[in-house]
Amino acid sequence: MIYTCTLNPAIDLFIETENDLQHGVVNRTREEDYQANGKGVNVSIILKKLGLSSTALGFTAGFTGDYIQDELRSMGIATDFVDIHGITRVNIFVHSKDKEYKIVNRGPAVDASDVEQLFEKIHALPDHSMLFVSGSVPRGVDDAVYEDISKVASDKHLDLILDISSKTLLDCLPYQPYLIKPNKEELAYFYGKDDLQDDEIIYFGHDLLNKGAQRVLISLGADGAIYMDETHLLKVTSPKGDVINTACAGDTMLAMFVQKIQTGATIEQALVHASAAGSSTAFSKGLSDLQDIDTLIKGITIENVRGRK
Amino acid sequence: MIYTCTLNPAIDLFIETENDLQHGVVNRTREEDYQANGKGVNVSIILKKLGLSSTALGFTAGFTGDYIQDELRSMGIATDFVDIHGITRVNIFVHSKDKEYKIVNRGPAVDASDVEQLFEKIHALPDHSMLFVSGSVPRGVDDAVYEDISKVASDKHLDLILDISSKTLLDCLPYQPYLIKPNKEELAYFYGKDDLQDDEIIYFGHDLLNKGAQRVLISLGADGAIYMDETHLLKVTSPKGDVINTACAGDTMLAMFVQKIQTGATIEQALVHASAAGSSTAFSKGLSDLQDIDTLIKGITIENVRGRK
Repeated sequence: MIYTCTLNPAIDLFIETENDLQHGVVNRTREEDYQANGKGVNVSIILKKLGLSSTALGFTAGFTGDYIQDELRSMGIATDFVDIHGITRVNIFVHSKDKEYKIVNRGPAVDASDVEQLFEKIHALPDHSMLFVSGSVPRGVDDAVYEDISKVASDKHLDLILDISSKTLLDCLPYQPYLIKPNKEELAYFYGKDDLQDDEIIYFGHDLLNKGAQRVLISLGADGAIYMDETHLLKVTSPKGDVINTACAGDTMLAMFVQKIQTGATIEQALVHASAAGSSTAFSKGLSDLQDIDTLIKGITIENVRGRK
Repeated sequence: MIYTCTLNPAIDLFIETENDLQHGVVNRTREEDYQANGKGVNVSIILKKLGLSSTALGFTAGFTGDYIQDELRSMGIATDFVDIHGITRVNIFVHSKDKEYKIVNRGPAVDASDVEQLFEKIHALPDHSMLFVSGSVPRGVDDAVYEDISKVASDKHLDLILDISSKTLLDCLPYQPYLIKPNKEELAYFYGKDDLQDDEIIYFGHDLLNKGAQRVLISLGADGAIYMDETHLLKVTSPKGDVINTACAGDTMLAMFVQKIQTGATIEQALVHASAAGSSTAFSKGLSDLQDIDTLIKGITIENVRGRK
């Protein structure tokens, strides 16, 4: 059984305007598109496109939360969100003539009893399930919630996959998460660096493994990704293409990687597919339909970099 | 019985950002507010605040349309919208440090059978009802729909109130609408002018009366309003205050004016209250709660300008 958990999901409203945004006047749009979003939600959607069923957990509120649930269920994805007070946020992505504006709202506040309800749901998951926890914490919730989830996951022998930007990730590692997926910027931030070279990425990746992570997938944007576990140290490139929106690329990469591993692919195969999938979404408006994976794979190389270190 | 009709309603998403909007980065907000909107929807809400019940008609679609209906019903306002395909639009109002961005989406397309369903509803209204028709036409609908509505209204002896920006308003006048409410810019546009002085406003206002309008209320923004019918020619000022958002001021003015007339006030009283109400909304984020009307009235003067012409 696979579960995803999104603590602060969103509807992404993609808008196209003819001209660049101007203040003080009405900016009329020529395109509008409303998509259920949130990092865990995206993972559930991509997994479903790849034939894997999952149940989406987290917090939803109001009419926007209902829409996300309806959208997921219409795709055949089960939902088990905690309904909270307020309105799940709508984030806005304005694509004007040659500029991109991203407006990210805070979303509803979550209170202690909401968190308690979520933990009841996590406690009730079947032992040995897989649980993705992705995204940021909502208002009212401390980052320590990730550590609490990690403890429960450890107790229940869940395969926990963490894709979070919080430094609390480091405190989760003793609970031996199945996989963590920082991007390069997050990794640099965790270790107090501004930027990282490949050898530093590998150095800190080893530290994450030493601290307890079972697998580490570090996304490098247009430079591909580095994967590390006890026996692997691989670097994969990204295919070339016109990047439209990088927001959901990491979620797509992660879902594809895990789906491939779960269905018997080698780590190398999983990594190449993951890079293609991430790029496919980066080249799309919203989540990719994954139709171009086979083509994109041709532009990807994978390298065993163990020798380098 | 009172009915309002909004052909392309919207949810207004009011957002506050700490800094001015920047492209290429994530703009985080500190405030978000989702309000059911649309010119006819606003009239229904204001009428309700003033103790008058109405039924809201028009087209709604998808989860956003459901929200508008739920919001109206939660205020005790009846709804009888035609449910159409697509998603009712979300318009976005970004209030940044010292700039205001208005992003207005197109909303869903309406097809011929949707329009037919709306006309069935209008045909079924009780004779001698009051019908407000406000706002712009959605995609797929020609402005001539206003003329068609005016014909039906005339046949059924409805008191038709038109608040539309379309030049088609002039074609509706032979059906003798009860009241029309152009603003100064719209009046200028109808007659092919760039700007209008008071004497020109009155001149064209007379033309609207001569063409068939029973009552003409011309809003002048911060300069107040001019009202004209067979026996009245009045000018009212606006109270002073900090304008936050003029979007719904006209709807508020109109609803207050009609409520006052319907409940036995003189035209003069109605006009002073209408000016106060419009300003009260202009001074608010979203629709006013009308708590400051009595205070605002003290800053308003009304003048019989018949002598001027």
